[in-house]
Amino acid sequence: MPYNTEALNAYLDQHRDRFLDEFGQFIGQISVAADGRGVPEMAELVAERFRQLGADVTVYPTPGSPVIYAEMGPQDAARTLMIYNHYDVQPEDPLELWETPPFEMVIRDGVIYGRGTSDDKGELLSRIQAVEAWRETQGELPVHIKWVVEGEEEIGSVHLEEWVDEHAAMLAADGLLWEGGGYDEVGRPMFGLGGKGLAFFELHCQGADHDLHSSVAPIVVNPAWRLVWALSTLKDHDDNITLDGYLEHQRALTDEEWARIDAVQLEFDAMRKRWGLDGWLKDLDDPAARRRYISEPTITICGIHSGYGGPGSKTVLPAEASAKLDFRLVDGLTSQLAHDLLRQHLDRRGFTDITITQLGGEEFAASPPGSLVERAAIAASQESWGKEPNMYPWLPGSGPIHQLSTRLNIPAIFAGTTWHPNARIHSPNENIHVKDYFESMRFTASFLAHFASLKA
Amino acid sequence: MPYNTEALNAYLDQHRDRFLDEFGQFIGQISVAADGRGVPEMAELVAERFRQLGADVTVYPTPGSPVIYAEMGPQDAARTLMIYNHYDVQPEDPLELWETPPFEMVIRDGVIYGRGTSDDKGELLSRIQAVEAWRETQGELPVHIKWVVEGEEEIGSVHLEEWVDEHAAMLAADGLLWEGGGYDEVGRPMFGLGGKGLAFFELHCQGADHDLHSSVAPIVVNPAWRLVWALSTLKDHDDNITLDGYLEHQRALTDEEWARIDAVQLEFDAMRKRWGLDGWLKDLDDPAARRRYISEPTITICGIHSGYGGPGSKTVLPAEASAKLDFRLVDGLTSQLAHDLLRQHLDRRGFTDITITQLGGEEFAASPPGSLVERAAIAASQESWGKEPNMYPWLPGSGPIHQLSTRLNIPAIFAGTTWHPNARIHSPNENIHVKDYFESMRFTASFLAHFASLKA
Repeated sequence: MPYNTEALNAYLDQHRDRFLDEFGQFIGQISVAADGRGVPEMAELVAERFRQLGADVTVYPTPGSPVIYAEMGPQDAARTLMIYNHYDVQPEDPLELWETPPFEMVIRDGVIYGRGTSDDKGELLSRIQAVEAWRETQGELPVHIKWVVEGEEEIGSVHLEEWVDEHAAMLAADGLLWEGGGYDEVGRPMFGLGGKGLAFFELHCQGADHDLHSSVAPIVVNPAWRLVWALSTLKDHDDNITLDGYLEHQRALTDEEWARIDAVQLEFDAMRKRWGLDGWLKDLDDPAARRRYISEPTITICGIHSGYGGPGSKTVLPAEASAKLDFRLVDGLTSQLAHDLLRQHLDRRGFTDITITQLGGEEFAASPPGSLVERAAIAASQESWGKEPNMYPWLPGSGPIHQLSTRLNIPAIFAGTTWHPNARIHSPNENIHVKDYFESMRFTASFLAHFASLKA
Repeated sequence: MPYNTEALNAYLDQHRDRFLDEFGQFIGQISVAADGRGVPEMAELVAERFRQLGADVTVYPTPGSPVIYAEMGPQDAARTLMIYNHYDVQPEDPLELWETPPFEMVIRDGVIYGRGTSDDKGELLSRIQAVEAWRETQGELPVHIKWVVEGEEEIGSVHLEEWVDEHAAMLAADGLLWEGGGYDEVGRPMFGLGGKGLAFFELHCQGADHDLHSSVAPIVVNPAWRLVWALSTLKDHDDNITLDGYLEHQRALTDEEWARIDAVQLEFDAMRKRWGLDGWLKDLDDPAARRRYISEPTITICGIHSGYGGPGSKTVLPAEASAKLDFRLVDGLTSQLAHDLLRQHLDRRGFTDITITQLGGEEFAASPPGSLVERAAIAASQESWGKEPNMYPWLPGSGPIHQLSTRLNIPAIFAGTTWHPNARIHSPNENIHVKDYFESMRFTASFLAHFASLKA
């Protein structure tokens, strides 16, 4: 579908400062789902921005963060596009490693710093601004848009399933543009047709009812030891998962899937350099690392904490110990299965005293290749950068894509264009490039045009 | 040796408020050796209090906390008593569990709260005040006293060995009154002829150079996993030490030693209740628990920390992980042996990437029964409370007793009388009873009298 790119670009240039100011407001509004800080205020900020677009906006309360739902564009458009983003961010700790305040937009050398710049406020707002720019320069939108913006993505979208169940009837769409994606080390756009699932658990073990002097260690249970022993049974020292009965549920991949995985281009040298690593886990060579990165489930200790962690020594017997684990799930593995097998595995080894709290669960999802959204994203990539995107059959990361894609039967694509390899998402000094922020608007406009006009 | 107990008691009553005010100053002066807070100020406060006694005081700088050395009493006394205390305290965390400010003396219902009340400022100051009271009511001291007060006991007395080496010539004495000891659940005084050794290690493992998104877990080393695996090889799930080649160095105890251990009276029900426990480790019965408590070496995880520990979930792959371990050492095991075998054990299993930092080491020490200090303590116990003390062949706790006792060949006794079972040493709400604070003065006076006059 032809559209006036010159007018669009002129509009983006003309409103550049205001667009960045608005981005500064989004970054400046803390919105940490893990502890709820600033979440209602951020939800209102997003809803208000949609209202400025003239969208039909509803803020749905949940027991956690509100879901914002916005419809825009002609009701009688031939095609309806669902867009998914989230307004919550990861906690900012460790604070001392930030070079600028996490909840303040700082632009330095063409880079925008701040929590949420990359994940996911930059993409959310640049897409909103793209819709504004389209309207102001092209007239009516070429598609009807149903925009779902949740506020619990970073804690496992714990209330999204219930919301989708309640509102399934209004959520029909012809394709789903997901959050995420971005550029690789050499500037190729990286898109994906799905993502791994995610099960997040907190394990806790209690010993005495308060920390004791460590001289009583010969006779008093140490929950730190028990947690260490329990965890050590979940993976062997060579990083193979040993959770009883788990891997047998993993679906074997087809030759076609392996071929698509092998076709994913990864800049291994740059990745190692960026992360300060000499090599991969298990001394994998690069092709094997690619296969493992995309195809394998994981059990990751995201955190373990017990007892004294300050400077020097403290001879204490800790009263409690806890660990946070995430399981990245591939096809065949579900968050419920992970929970149930973990419980049985620990019980079987006598760790009945270790409690498991599940903090959200997301399921593996991958749309089949050839969908309208995939073709629109490829066409927009060609139009925007003259390049084929690097297409993952599913991304190694996760999101609640299952809730909106698999359950509503809508083909999906991850096709964000703000992330870059040094974006440090979930880490201190999260950032995106100013250039990519505006590229995201151009890509979004192109995607809308192609999604509206490609042959079915 | 007869002395005027009536005059002594009257003096203690008369100066009760001032003595408690002085104690408040000692508690109010933070002195955390682990991070050095307030240490120089506390050293000066102690030195000044000794000067007020007319003692010959020297403050010896070390690369860490100063050692305070004070001599008092007649140079030509028939016997010389060495007294050991320390002015440093454990860190106050977890702060949120304190019901009153840790570095403020709060007296409530006959109990004095504050960090260091029990370990070891109460004992230190009450002994000083006992010497004052003796002088003011009895005249000259019956013994010559050499008082060593260090400021690094809580971090393994890291500079005491060097100090003792340099000043061995001036440290000759006929007996050594150590810190520690106290009352058990039924009010029996608990003394000891030594203590276990202690080796404290910090283990550290580094992965990537910053925390990463956990989606890269299939290919990037996770230092939390490596630390968990390494630790899990040091003790089996039934709490038996499995450090290669370690336990074979443990000296077998004699029948006489077992008999002395079996004679130690422990109030097991009260201990379990106080600590909120249903039973002992390994389901030990009480007699077996007593043997294990006193006779066994330990490897304790005092702390383990990696990654995210805040509320909710955070899907992060940690960049680093660290653990603090203490080894309580029995006869035959040394801190050097523990270090060397730990390094070899980890290397043998491929954990060469895990660094070990030794934070102080203390050696097992136990004086033979029948010494002058033991007999003086027993006599003072009988005089003070009409009771035989509960005598441990060595206490399950540790101290640098080896430095002053074994190395200088001075028989020692732990015979403090301020600790009680709910004193929560090393924990929030550390406390002692007001009554015990003053009992410690009476006991000290009686001990001095008996130490001066008992037959050799």
